[in-house]
Amino acid sequence: MKLMKHTKQLGWEITRYDGKVLSTENVEVVEEFPLTVVLNGKEFATIICSPIHLYELIVGFLASEGVIRKYDEIISVNIDEDQGFAYVEMDRPLIIDDHSKRFIGSCCGKSRQFYFKRDVRTAKTIRSNLTVSVEKSVKLMQLMQKESEQFLRTGGVHNAALCTAEEMLFIRTDIGRHNALDKINGHVLKNKISLTDKLIVFSGRVSSEVLLKISKIGIGILISKSAPTTLALELANDLGITVVGFARGDRLNIYTHGERIV
Amino acid sequence: MKLMKHTKQLGWEITRYDGKVLSTENVEVVEEFPLTVVLNGKEFATIICSPIHLYELIVGFLASEGVIRKYDEIISVNIDEDQGFAYVEMDRPLIIDDHSKRFIGSCCGKSRQFYFKRDVRTAKTIRSNLTVSVEKSVKLMQLMQKESEQFLRTGGVHNAALCTAEEMLFIRTDIGRHNALDKINGHVLKNKISLTDKLIVFSGRVSSEVLLKISKIGIGILISKSAPTTLALELANDLGITVVGFARGDRLNIYTHGERIV
Repeated sequence: MKLMKHTKQLGWEITRYDGKVLSTENVEVVEEFPLTVVLNGKEFATIICSPIHLYELIVGFLASEGVIRKYDEIISVNIDEDQGFAYVEMDRPLIIDDHSKRFIGSCCGKSRQFYFKRDVRTAKTIRSNLTVSVEKSVKLMQLMQKESEQFLRTGGVHNAALCTAEEMLFIRTDIGRHNALDKINGHVLKNKISLTDKLIVFSGRVSSEVLLKISKIGIGILISKSAPTTLALELANDLGITVVGFARGDRLNIYTHGERIV
Repeated sequence: MKLMKHTKQLGWEITRYDGKVLSTENVEVVEEFPLTVVLNGKEFATIICSPIHLYELIVGFLASEGVIRKYDEIISVNIDEDQGFAYVEMDRPLIIDDHSKRFIGSCCGKSRQFYFKRDVRTAKTIRSNLTVSVEKSVKLMQLMQKESEQFLRTGGVHNAALCTAEEMLFIRTDIGRHNALDKINGHVLKNKISLTDKLIVFSGRVSSEVLLKISKIGIGILISKSAPTTLALELANDLGITVVGFARGDRLNIYTHGERIV
């Protein structure tokens, strides 16, 4: 198994207009990498992603889709980066009934059917006693933003970070905000990290699908830089997840389960 | 056929932290609306969207997916807003070979297979002689931003606007950036608007799927507030589309086919 060490950002010659004059410049552009997951010899899905932490992405994606319930169900993952294929062997045949159901999202949102059939089985109600101070919430978002600046030159990526109430543990980056969360989940599963004292800081919008991913990972507190949707907030209420949004500068909004923000 | 007149934005009681103190407030949260499209009596897809301009969304979506080639192929559309269903009758049976192919995107990006099989058939090379001045490009983006401020209170929507080189014609809004483009396309098809002198101004990132949608609509100039990806730029080069990115304030970057920006 081969892993790429960093996101490829390719040079592109542009004409820049600064409000007064035009100039030619070479800038970095973020890569969009199609990765087709072949499961037990059969094409399963193609993920458009940033080519970094691909193994974690695959593990997190399969867990989020409900394909695996435990990390041990994966026997092997072989990634062919040149062709953009990942060959996954599992310890049992895949039942693809639900997976063959089509869905189209506003941003990979799932269909109602998909939600009701699959997600109700895999989404978890969170009963976490973890609390975080409002000052620390602000601080953790600032930390992630600062840490991710190196990835942000191209302006085209999202970030997610696994944190305790005190510190940021690690950060994952992808052009797809869902992928960033899947990478967090893949790392958690691979390293059997306990989640009872963990929260996630996230740059992207909180749609229903993002909220469901948080629930499936098993996280009780989500702190996002961006806005939530009504459906996500209703799900968060039901599933016991604290949603903090618009965490920008030293401000933030607490939308659901505010008892965990102290 | 019923159409909703505006995006529903629902009240939500939050706790706001302004850097110093906590206060309780009622804020608007953007709605996430699942719309299941039933085609000739068969469930085809579920689009997660903002419940405004649903008819245009459906028409644009079906065109972008290659389900319809001409507007006239649609006999009727009946939208049941309470249940979130749209019943579409077409003048011929649907061949769903390619549509049953699964895809997962970073942000609804398509799989390679989907791209090669369907998009190569429907993506158009653009041979437009339209030009726009760099000053007008800046101005049109500012216009759209200003116009869309009323929709932006919730922070969770994307905008697209159809423009000439001189003025903004109309704007469409959705929580999904792809949906905003489909709504533009639906309006264009319904009203048989000529595209030879039109361009699109867009708030979202330019992924390969966004670029392909622009090509399928038949637009030669895309001006975006956000970043493009490498794959989108390669496609834009091939398909003859001018991509302008990072149009913010009075600045912008010209990435491809700069001959149309004068």
